Amino acid sequence: MSRDETMVNAFVPGLGNLPPETEALVARRQRLLGPAYRLFYETPVHFVRAQGAWLYDAQGAAYLDCYNNVASLGHAHPRVLEATARQAAIYASHTRYLNDTVLDCAEKLLSHFPPELSQVMFTCTGSEANDLALRICFAATGGTGLVVTENAYHGVTHLMAGASPSLGPGVNLGPHVRTVPAPRDAASFAADVAAAFADLSRHGVKPAALLVDTIFSSDGVIPGAFLGPAVQATHEAGALMIADEVQPGFGRTGAHWWGFQTHGITPDLVTMGKPMGNGYPVAALVAKPEVLLPFGTKARYFNTFGGNAVACATAMAVMEVIETDDLLANASRIGALMAEGLRSLTHEALGETRQAGLFLGLDILEDGHPSAARAARLVNLLREARVLISATGPKGHVLKIRPPLILTEAQADLFLTATKAALRLL
Amino acid sequence: MSRDETMVNAFVPGLGNLPPETEALVARRQRLLGPAYRLFYETPVHFVRAQGAWLYDAQGAAYLDCYNNVASLGHAHPRVLEATARQAAIYASHTRYLNDTVLDCAEKLLSHFPPELSQVMFTCTGSEANDLALRICFAATGGTGLVVTENAYHGVTHLMAGASPSLGPGVNLGPHVRTVPAPRDAASFAADVAAAFADLSRHGVKPAALLVDTIFSSDGVIPGAFLGPAVQATHEAGALMIADEVQPGFGRTGAHWWGFQTHGITPDLVTMGKPMGNGYPVAALVAKPEVLLPFGTKARYFNTFGGNAVACATAMAVMEVIETDDLLANASRIGALMAEGLRSLTHEALGETRQAGLFLGLDILEDGHPSAARAARLVNLLREARVLISATGPKGHVLKIRPPLILTEAQADLFLTATKAALRLL
Repeated sequence: MSRDETMVNAFVPGLGNLPPETEALVARRQRLLGPAYRLFYETPVHFVRAQGAWLYDAQGAAYLDCYNNVASLGHAHPRVLEATARQAAIYASHTRYLNDTVLDCAEKLLSHFPPELSQVMFTCTGSEANDLALRICFAATGGTGLVVTENAYHGVTHLMAGASPSLGPGVNLGPHVRTVPAPRDAASFAADVAAAFADLSRHGVKPAALLVDTIFSSDGVIPGAFLGPAVQATHEAGALMIADEVQPGFGRTGAHWWGFQTHGITPDLVTMGKPMGNGYPVAALVAKPEVLLPFGTKARYFNTFGGNAVACATAMAVMEVIETDDLLANASRIGALMAEGLRSLTHEALGETRQAGLFLGLDILEDGHPSAARAARLVNLLREARVLISATGPKGHVLKIRPPLILTEAQADLFLTATKAALRLL
Repeated sequence: MSRDETMVNAFVPGLGNLPPETEALVARRQRLLGPAYRLFYETPVHFVRAQGAWLYDAQGAAYLDCYNNVASLGHAHPRVLEATARQAAIYASHTRYLNDTVLDCAEKLLSHFPPELSQVMFTCTGSEANDLALRICFAATGGTGLVVTENAYHGVTHLMAGASPSLGPGVNLGPHVRTVPAPRDAASFAADVAAAFADLSRHGVKPAALLVDTIFSSDGVIPGAFLGPAVQATHEAGALMIADEVQPGFGRTGAHWWGFQTHGITPDLVTMGKPMGNGYPVAALVAKPEVLLPFGTKARYFNTFGGNAVACATAMAVMEVIETDDLLANASRIGALMAEGLRSLTHEALGETRQAGLFLGLDILEDGHPSAARAARLVNLLREARVLISATGPKGHVLKIRPPLILTEAQADLFLTATKAALRLL
């Protein structure tokens, strides 16, 4: 098997020598899970335990987690574990019976949104939330035309994989999908979006939605305030705007609960997932009622596990911890320290550092040009130093640094020290 | 709002008088969750607690669960709760690191399959499993043509909703989808499947898959051995056969772990979900390696929560309980008692009883014709008697009875007594 050009940090079987225990586990995994799964790193890591910002391998070695945005409150957060276990022992059932927990959770979630965004639908994964958001836009607009950014990732259902160019040329985009470059500035992004909708219309495809990750994670981590004019262009084309908050949501950007707030916009729909249950599978969308109405009139929605009482009790505990521990403030403070530290490093491989809260992107260069190979090398050097990050972007040259929101100053220092050492070995 | 013709047991707001507490909860729910959600029953039930085969309402009244197939081992099963909580406190992370739990779970799952079906992929929901199974068939065949039964239900992603005629005329079927009547006998079903694939080919749509629930739940619960010749017709058309085991799987039919075994076939792919985690969101597909290969060569698959260590520890506990408590034997024995009991009742509303293990379908008639109205009336009479069932089928006239696999003889008697009393009030 050759290197996966579409995933810079994918393990490639057959390259390099693995420790025998790792080799055996990789072979067993290949046999049982088949050819579609990917591992991280040149030498995959075998984890058996995790706590807070730390993951522990089979030999007991601790790795600092600067990557996993699901356990956003830290791995195995006791208050979340307690809420999940307590509710699971009492009542776990679904949304076709009346139950308070799903409503309490919806209310708490909506308290973090502008008042126009006042209804919630629950799913299990971000993929399902984006897929449902699109079905809702199809019903509301009568169209199917969809615009996404050129290295977007929005999920793994058939519909969403077809709207995720970052999955590479082996996965076809839908014929109703157009891509635009990630934003450099608000005006040119709006012009690109307008042109994409015009092209869809020209091909007889009625516009339905602009779908963007509001921090453009897979496009290279691009924080900023770009989306106002693009939303206007979207509405002028008769389409709706979906903010995909699976990555920036739940306070990761520090300044706000949701990435769209940085852009000063109110989306028509907002999708969310990963950190919502700190590991428990729960996701959702929030929408304007008038946007949901045409779908709800034509179709019913039932997701067996979506909105079950345990998922909702867990999500409530996550929101409570974010609130009471003031994790947005910590994300802002520690994220700024990390960005400052990275910017103070001097090495010809280092390009721009972009940062919003605890989401950082760092361009890696060789001879002044984007270098996926060097980015991969740094990711693997840091893995050897027991610090976990990854790389992303259309050219694969952007270090993706995304620690839990509870990261301490000492842990940020450890990350910076390890990065400095890795650069020396580059 | 008028009655939902596509869901016989849906609560219709505005019909009938609700207790004030229920009215208030329904209104709050409508406000927070919007128009696409449906409740069960003329008077929705407000549950706050569940244990074993019992659900408890806000006043503490106990309802016998003869419907929910997620908590298949009984609600809040202590061994499953313990396995979930234990693993969640240790390690919950995903499939891009090596971890034993996902492999142990895959191995245990595969031990219940014929040897040709030897690889597992994990998702969070049955919808995601079916959606992924179809993506795999598209890659393996180069086609997209799909055949399903005429009142099939296979999920809520865009792709699967478009393959679920039971969602009603408000949800469009995909242009690549054809429907066939549910089987009456093996030969005519195979002929219908062959004709449907021929029609797809005639329209330039290359055949990809036959997808059937192996107990035809939403088609009216039709146990039997119908699928052999249809699988042959599917392969002759160049398509693959997917057995949707979300409903019959994990021992519900008593005789086997999977519904396809009753048909004496080996599907190319098998999907599963609902009871797999006894309430924890976990689902999967099992496939022949040669079927997965073309997909895995072109595309990678990553599902953030799919195959996480907690999901897998939970699914293992579920499988262990099914094995050690010999729940297939209990499903066979109690299911047979229930079928015998229903068949011994005399009432002109009662048509055929169909049964496999603890999955029963009972036709309800008026003047010898299928009657959805009478079925709904019986479902609601039983709800008043605190016994939970529902109704299904293309004409909505089939009582759907699907208790947990742990149902006791005394609980089966209680169900039969309540049904007898409800018939007297019909």
